[in-house]
Amino acid sequence: MTARFIALYETPTDPAAFDRHYHDAHIPLARRLPGLRRYTIGRDLVAVRGGFPYYLVAELEWDSMDELHAAFASPEGRATAADAAHLQELSPVRSMIFAVDESVL
Amino acid sequence: MTARFIALYETPTDPAAFDRHYHDAHIPLARRLPGLRRYTIGRDLVAVRGGFPYYLVAELEWDSMDELHAAFASPEGRATAADAAHLQELSPVRSMIFAVDESVL
Repeated sequence: MTARFIALYETPTDPAAFDRHYHDAHIPLARRLPGLRRYTIGRDLVAVRGGFPYYLVAELEWDSMDELHAAFASPEGRATAADAAHLQELSPVRSMIFAVDESVL
Repeated sequence: MTARFIALYETPTDPAAFDRHYHDAHIPLARRLPGLRRYTIGRDLVAVRGGFPYYLVAELEWDSMDELHAAFASPEGRATAADAAHLQELSPVRSMIFAVDESVL
């Protein structure tokens, strides 16, 4: 079963500094994660319910939860996590992992 | 460019009532949305950053923003939205739409 990591960033105090760091430092690190199958980003989100949208939504997908955990534990994973700690100083984030249930459609 | 709708549900006061309504009423409505290409659900989420995870993450994908908007405006879309208003009484939700940037990987 596919496994996914999702990171939800609130609007940063300094959007330009966040965008620069995300683009120039974080993407180059995260895209090298072993076994990564899909990496998508959403910007310019429009709220439907709940008031206000997130500033940026990033989703990364692996073929299995074992592969996700292996990627997080790899040298590339540790480097990406260290950079995520810095990103978190630029924008509050809520991130989580889950197994994807695709049986609904 | 692919368009996505994401709904992020907090832990409900009555998880069993929420699960029952989501499964028995909401999924049957949402899966009939015109042009829907992908509908995935994540449960049993594990937090990485930001303290605590959402209870349920639902993602629905269309081939374009025009198709997403057409689906929302359709009779099926209005029925799904009416049911989402009821779901929101069972669990606080934050939902939003966005164009998907897949150029990062």
